[in-house]
Amino acid sequence: MPFVNIKITRDGATTEQKRQLIAGVTQLLVDVMGKNPATTTVIIDEVDTDNWGMGGESVTELRKPKS
Amino acid sequence: MPFVNIKITRDGATTEQKRQLIAGVTQLLVDVMGKNPATTTVIIDEVDTDNWGMGGESVTELRKPKS
Amino acid sequence: MPFVNIKITRDGATTEQKRQLIAGVTQLLVDVMGKNPATTTVIIDEVDTDNWGMGGESVTELRKPKS
Amino acid sequence: MPFVNIKITRDGATTEQKRQLIAGVTQLLVDVMGKNPATTTVIIDEVDTDNWGMGGESVTELRKPKS
Amino acid sequence: MPFVNIKITRDGATTEQKRQLIAGVTQLLVDVMGKNPATTTVIIDEVDTDNWGMGGESVTELRKPKS
Amino acid sequence: MPFVNIKITRDGATTEQKRQLIAGVTQLLVDVMGKNPATTTVIIDEVDTDNWGMGGESVTELRKPKS
Repeated sequence: MPFVNIKITRDGATTEQKRQLIAGVTQLLVDVMGKNPATTTVIIDEVDTDNWGMGGESVTELRKPKS
Repeated sequence: MPFVNIKITRDGATTEQKRQLIAGVTQLLVDVMGKNPATTTVIIDEVDTDNWGMGGESVTELRKPKS
Repeated sequence: MPFVNIKITRDGATTEQKRQLIAGVTQLLVDVMGKNPATTTVIIDEVDTDNWGMGGESVTELRKPKS
Repeated sequence: MPFVNIKITRDGATTEQKRQLIAGVTQLLVDVMGKNPATTTVIIDEVDTDNWGMGGESVTELRKPKS
Repeated sequence: MPFVNIKITRDGATTEQKRQLIAGVTQLLVDVMGKNPATTTVIIDEVDTDNWGMGGESVTELRKPKS
Repeated sequence: MPFVNIKITRDGATTEQKRQLIAGVTQLLVDVMGKNPATTTVIIDEVDTDNWGMGGESVTELRKPKS
């Protein structure tokens, strides 16, 4: 019955990578907690780099080459 | 003052259906809890089926016909 | 497969009220969207009034009698 | 280490406004709580007005001129 | 920079189990997505069974022996 | 109408600090975005250090003196 929300920056995660995240975190909950995988929900949010801040700056800014 | 977040797969929910969800859940909080509808907030997130997992598989996979 | 999160202030919601919220919002998603109730998840968060703000003030403050 | 999620309606917030929200809320957590800005994360969600309800109506409806 | 929120029912998860969830999901994001573990945040919410619904009933109800 | 969720570790934040967070983030949304403070909601979640991970370790572990 667990619910997992994974937020990552929108950077071109592939369908295959998303499948691996869903499968991997579901299995982790089985292995560590004995949870039922059938009712484990995973939602992946992909967030634009303008909308994600770290250290007071957007990720868009953080990734710009510093001169 | 309640806050409600409804997450559904992105499947073509219509504007009318979203209006009914907003009206219905707001009324439910009035009826059950006596909450003030004026300050009840509802946010609906529509999530791509590649980004929603259940039972360790994405909904995209789950919906494929099994051969 | 919908996921619903309801946030209310911690004010003594009863077990019966929570059951009605869970049943009501699950039925709403059946009625409006045709969703499968078996896989509909609802999580209720009860939030202390010191930790909930509206209009720039905590709910604790808002509820104090104004002299 | 704080995590902040800001949800606003999708109304044309500019990149500059988002930068100011990220910088401002990060600084607020430094000033009020003494938190380390380097590990403060901020995520801004922009929500379509059809998907945001207040008072039982969508924001799309609320903004329509009343005749 | 990923952010992960894991919601489980409050059932006596041990400190060791929580450590394994945190370590495991952080490593998964390294393995699948190449994310930097240093800035990966994981938050575990433990939710009372009265406050978690599935199939229109609370988990408290679902776990009662059916006569 | 904005909605803000601030997650911090449970470390003894005072009622006064929470009031300052609520007032400050509400004012920030007025100043930067021109939002209506009356309908701005802020929810603060305080999370146990066992339940918050960073860099693959719980904050409880991270704060232990290293020998």
